[in-house]
Amino acid sequence: MSKRPLILITNDDSIYAKGIKSLVDVVKELGDVLVVSPQDPQSGMGHAITIHEPLRLKPSNQFKDIEAYTCSGTPVDCVKLAIYEVLKTRPTLLVSGINHGSNAATNILYSGTMSAAVEGAIENIPSIGFSLLDFDTDADFDAAKHYAKIICQNVLKHGLPKGTCLNVNIPKGKLDTLKGIKICRQGKAFWEDAFEKRTDPFGGDYYWLTGDFAVTDRGEDTDMFALENKYVSVVPTQFDMTAHHLISTLNEWDI
Amino acid sequence: MSKRPLILITNDDSIYAKGIKSLVDVVKELGDVLVVSPQDPQSGMGHAITIHEPLRLKPSNQFKDIEAYTCSGTPVDCVKLAIYEVLKTRPTLLVSGINHGSNAATNILYSGTMSAAVEGAIENIPSIGFSLLDFDTDADFDAAKHYAKIICQNVLKHGLPKGTCLNVNIPKGKLDTLKGIKICRQGKAFWEDAFEKRTDPFGGDYYWLTGDFAVTDRGEDTDMFALENKYVSVVPTQFDMTAHHLISTLNEWDI
Repeated sequence: MSKRPLILITNDDSIYAKGIKSLVDVVKELGDVLVVSPQDPQSGMGHAITIHEPLRLKPSNQFKDIEAYTCSGTPVDCVKLAIYEVLKTRPTLLVSGINHGSNAATNILYSGTMSAAVEGAIENIPSIGFSLLDFDTDADFDAAKHYAKIICQNVLKHGLPKGTCLNVNIPKGKLDTLKGIKICRQGKAFWEDAFEKRTDPFGGDYYWLTGDFAVTDRGEDTDMFALENKYVSVVPTQFDMTAHHLISTLNEWDI
Repeated sequence: MSKRPLILITNDDSIYAKGIKSLVDVVKELGDVLVVSPQDPQSGMGHAITIHEPLRLKPSNQFKDIEAYTCSGTPVDCVKLAIYEVLKTRPTLLVSGINHGSNAATNILYSGTMSAAVEGAIENIPSIGFSLLDFDTDADFDAAKHYAKIICQNVLKHGLPKGTCLNVNIPKGKLDTLKGIKICRQGKAFWEDAFEKRTDPFGGDYYWLTGDFAVTDRGEDTDMFALENKYVSVVPTQFDMTAHHLISTLNEWDI
């Protein structure tokens, strides 16, 4: 039996994305690797799970000398199948990504990449989601790989408290243009959505979701601020969504 | 122009579910109502949005004298389309549900019903998700309607702080078996998943996601505890997922 750490990799851009290949390259030096990744892109799937349809799981030769599977479902489905069906145990570390595009601030809620890491946290597995601020399918992941390795090494060394994971975002650019790592809180922002309305060849209307990301929180301790200033942002993340500060107020209501 | 509150209704069980009809019945007495609801069931879709496919929005006559639309996408898509395309403004109140089945504890993360309410909170709309602890398509919503009305009236009267919403779960049972409302925090639990493996007629394997909900947090201030004791649970909810307590620890790491 190997005593190397067992590292589970998933993502939301599919097993064919450059970002997951970059992450495999980083962590295969740190432990034994299993990949369970979506067969098709699953961006924006958030914490979705597949209830109404069966799931398919197929072996993949995508990575040389690495055990890998594709899954027909969401990133969270991938994590569940990996733990309960493939491994039958919990890995030492779960890493998700490297996502093509930012998952900073409120984007965490919509992100399949980060939802996979949060699912890891729910399962008490030290988990990290990595995202590069570059949507390009051929994005340059060199700087992201450098920081991903440092952060994985530290999580393997220090662990993470139960029920927590890390949301790591890396600015676009060469390594020598980045200033280092900042520990941050999740910034507040929202998508000011705009729908582009079109008409299909048969006269029916349809809409494409578009929009601008409106940052409403200028705090210098936010991930958005760190990224704008060329720092890698690391947000420690948990899944208790209780607005604890509101409990006493609600107890004053006459209900 | 009407001075009645404008109330947006959505859900995740589709516009044809008994639960949303029950919610329409409750809130049509309290304001002017718009329904934008999924055309197909969207349970377990979490905070998913539709990026890779166009969205369809169609008028529906499902509710007498109520403006209603079906949407081809997720509950969060419904909220975005309602605000940015149908209303072109923010409603006074957003209500989601009444869900057929519990969204207590960690279920909030997987829940389309609650993700619609959280999307409302992101948009600074006072928002409430309602769920009945009964998966039956013909469940008895009488007690749920009673409490939904009280809670909607109170939110219309008091408002909710920016960036917050309510997660309301109602035990199964007749009104006189319920003990009232408890303000709670989100309990901690996880799905101990089991996959049922089957083989299709063509020899291919597939999996159904099943599992048991394992409650790991016995706190008497949790929603799970309240529901087990026949109270309606109200969890004030927000969307900052930062593990604030972990920031100082991570700043001690040598990264």
